[in-house]
Amino acid sequence: MNDNPCTQIRHDFPIFEVSVDDQPLCYLDSAATTQKPNQVIQAVKDFYQSQNANVHRGLHTLSEQATTAYEAVRRKLAQFLNVQSREIVWTSGATASLNLIAYGLSDSLKKDDVILLSPLEHHANIVPWQLAAKRTGARIELLPVDAQGILQLEQAKALIENLKPKVMSICHASNALGNINDVAALIASSKSSGTVTVIDGAQSLLHLRPDLQQLDCDFYVFSAHKALGPTGLGGLYGRYELLNALPVYQSGGEMIDTVSFSGTTFRPAPEKFEPGTPNIAGVIGFGAALDYLAAQDHDALFQHEQSLYQSLLQQLSGIDGIRIWGDTANNVGTVSFNYKNEHHYDLATLLNTHGIAVRSGHHCTQPLMAHLGIEGTIRASLAFYNNQQDISRFIAALKDTISLLEE
Amino acid sequence: MNDNPCTQIRHDFPIFEVSVDDQPLCYLDSAATTQKPNQVIQAVKDFYQSQNANVHRGLHTLSEQATTAYEAVRRKLAQFLNVQSREIVWTSGATASLNLIAYGLSDSLKKDDVILLSPLEHHANIVPWQLAAKRTGARIELLPVDAQGILQLEQAKALIENLKPKVMSICHASNALGNINDVAALIASSKSSGTVTVIDGAQSLLHLRPDLQQLDCDFYVFSAHKALGPTGLGGLYGRYELLNALPVYQSGGEMIDTVSFSGTTFRPAPEKFEPGTPNIAGVIGFGAALDYLAAQDHDALFQHEQSLYQSLLQQLSGIDGIRIWGDTANNVGTVSFNYKNEHHYDLATLLNTHGIAVRSGHHCTQPLMAHLGIEGTIRASLAFYNNQQDISRFIAALKDTISLLEE
Repeated sequence: MNDNPCTQIRHDFPIFEVSVDDQPLCYLDSAATTQKPNQVIQAVKDFYQSQNANVHRGLHTLSEQATTAYEAVRRKLAQFLNVQSREIVWTSGATASLNLIAYGLSDSLKKDDVILLSPLEHHANIVPWQLAAKRTGARIELLPVDAQGILQLEQAKALIENLKPKVMSICHASNALGNINDVAALIASSKSSGTVTVIDGAQSLLHLRPDLQQLDCDFYVFSAHKALGPTGLGGLYGRYELLNALPVYQSGGEMIDTVSFSGTTFRPAPEKFEPGTPNIAGVIGFGAALDYLAAQDHDALFQHEQSLYQSLLQQLSGIDGIRIWGDTANNVGTVSFNYKNEHHYDLATLLNTHGIAVRSGHHCTQPLMAHLGIEGTIRASLAFYNNQQDISRFIAALKDTISLLEE
Repeated sequence: MNDNPCTQIRHDFPIFEVSVDDQPLCYLDSAATTQKPNQVIQAVKDFYQSQNANVHRGLHTLSEQATTAYEAVRRKLAQFLNVQSREIVWTSGATASLNLIAYGLSDSLKKDDVILLSPLEHHANIVPWQLAAKRTGARIELLPVDAQGILQLEQAKALIENLKPKVMSICHASNALGNINDVAALIASSKSSGTVTVIDGAQSLLHLRPDLQQLDCDFYVFSAHKALGPTGLGGLYGRYELLNALPVYQSGGEMIDTVSFSGTTFRPAPEKFEPGTPNIAGVIGFGAALDYLAAQDHDALFQHEQSLYQSLLQQLSGIDGIRIWGDTANNVGTVSFNYKNEHHYDLATLLNTHGIAVRSGHHCTQPLMAHLGIEGTIRASLAFYNNQQDISRFIAALKDTISLLEE
C-alpha cells in the first residue's frame, strides 16, 4: 500500500496536528464535511485581512479586486466541471441549490407528471420534490434499489423509458452508503423522453471530479464544504437555456435589471439567481480549494482513497457480526455498517472514546434506512488525506468496542 | 474631536495596514460591507484549523464541540437583541431572510390586502414583496417620504391607521441615505390593526444595537458581514408564535422530524427554517464579532461615529455645488450626495485615484433614486473604525476632484 500521496498531503491539513480528547484525531467523517488545507484557510484569512470589500457594487480598487477574484473562481469551477462559467450559480449550499431547482421546475410540472427519485437520496433531494409535487399534483416515483442498497441499473433504465419522467433527480454517490451510481447511463436512458436530469453531486465533486459535458446532465448541485472549501457556500450547474428559463427564486439586489413600484425586470442567469451580497470569502476560499485539487494528480488521490477503502473493507469483513451495506464494488470510499443488533449510537459513542470520528444515525436518508429495514448505521467516510494508520486505529478501536459490548 | 476610541480600535482591523494603489486605504464604504477585526478573522481561522466538523450530525467530540460553539452564538445574538434564542434563524444573509419572510407571509395574504413599504427600501425589501403581491393579489402601498428623502412621520402614522396594512416592512436605517427611521413609532401605530411588522436591520444592527423587545417588531433581518462578521451569513428574529407559524421555505436535512415517501413532518422553528449544513465558520466568526462589540462602550462608539459624521457634513456643506440627500439630523453616519450635474461615476472614479473607497450608483434603491429625481449618488458611509484623517483625506480628494472637473 503506497501512502506516499497521503504523507505529503496530510501536512497541508492543520487539523491533523490537533489532539481531540488527548488523542490524535482519526477523522472518518468526510462525507459530512471535509477538512480544509492551509491554502484554503490562508486564502480566507488573506481576503479578510487585506482584500475585504463587497463585489459588483463599487468601482473603488478594493471592490474591483474583490469582484475580479470572485468571478475568477466561477471560471475556475466551470473549467473544473467542463462547463461555461455563466452556467454556474453560487448558492449557500447543495440544499439551497436543490430547492432553487425544484422550485423553478415546478412551473413546468403538472398533475400526474412523474418526478423520478431513488430511495438512496438525501432528504435534501427528497423534500423539495415532495413540496413541488404537492404544489403541482406531480407524483414521485422511485428507481429500483435492492435489499443491499444497490441501484438496479437495467431495471432502472427500463423504468425510465417506461415512465418518461419530467424530472429525474438522483445522487451521483450516496451520502449514506458511498455507492457510485452510473448516472451517465441513467441520463442517457432518459434522453428520448426529454427528462430534465438533476444530479446531486454533494458526494461526487471531490471524489469523482466529474466532467459534466460527458455526464450530459441538465443540472448538477454541490457544496463547497464537502470539497475542501469553506462552509456556507455551494452552487449549481445548469445547462444554460434551461437555467435561464427557470423563474426567479430568491429576489433582491444585484439580480435585477430595473426595479420600480410599477414593475421589476430581472437580469439573465446566473445573476438572476444571486440576489444580495454573496459569500465572497467563501468563494475565494473555494477557489483556493480548486487550485489545490488542480495541482494534485486526481487519479493518484482516487487510487489512494480506493486502496484505503479496500483495506478497510477487508479488515471489517474479518470481524464476525459486521453487516456492510451498499455497493462495495463502486464506492467513493464510505463504509456504512452495523454490528449485530447493537445500536449504532452506542458503537459510535464508544469509538469516540478512542478518538475516532465517525457518524452514526440515518444520515439524512430515513427512506433508505426504512428500505434497508434498519434505523441507522455507523458510517466511516474517507478522503484522500486519510492514511493506513487511520484504518488501523479505527479497526483496533472497533474491536475493542465490540469486546466491551460483548462482555 | 476626541479620536481616542478610534485610535485603539483601528489597530484591531488589519486592512488599515494595507496599501491600495500605493496609498493607505481610506474606507468609506461600510454600508456595503464592514471591515473585520483580527478577533473575527482569527476565530474563523481557528475553527478551520482545529475545530472543523459538521454540526448537529455527529456525536464525535469534534462535532459536538462545533455544535456547542455554533449554538452558543445563537444565544449570544439573542442576548444582543434582547430576544429568545429560539427566535433566531440563521440564513445566508438579510436578502435570504426577507425572502423567507415574504414567502412565508404570502400564505396569510389575500386579494387587496395591503403590504406597506417605503420608497427608501433596498431592492431586497421591495422585490420579494412584489412577488408576494403577484402571488396573492395583495397590493403594495408606500409610506410618505419628502423630496429630500425623509420619511414624514406624522403622515405615515395616519396612513398606517387608515390603511390597516396586513404587513409593514421598512428599513431601520436607509442604506442609501443613512436616515434612521422612527420604526418604534411606526410599529406602535400599526398595533391596533394587527399588522405584521418587519424591520430591515441590515444598516442598524451595528450602528444602533437595537433592543427588539423595545422596538416591538415581529420580524427583524440582518447580515453578519455588515456588522463585522463573515460573508455568507445573516439571519432573522421572529416573534416565536409568528415565526413558528410560517410555512417551510427551503427544505432538506436537519429541519425535518421524519421523512418518508408517504409524507414528511417538520421540526419546530428555528430548525424548520435551517435545512442543510449551515455556515458554521461564519456563525463562529460572527460570535467573535458579537464578543468584540459587547466589549466596547456602544455609546462611545456611536458618539465617535456621529462626531465624524458631523465633521464630514460640515466640511461638505462648505463646498459649493454639493447637494446632500436624506435626514442629516437622524443618521447612522452615511452621507449621500451629488456635485452639480457631474455624474456620480466620474466623481467616484477620480476619488479612487486618491485611495478613497466610496460607493457610487443607485445603491440597490432605484425607486428612491427615481423619487429624488436622480440616477444615483456618491455615498460615503462611516463605521466606528474611521477617524478624522479619513474625513480630511476624503474632503481633500473631493476638492481636488472637483477642481479637476471644473478645469
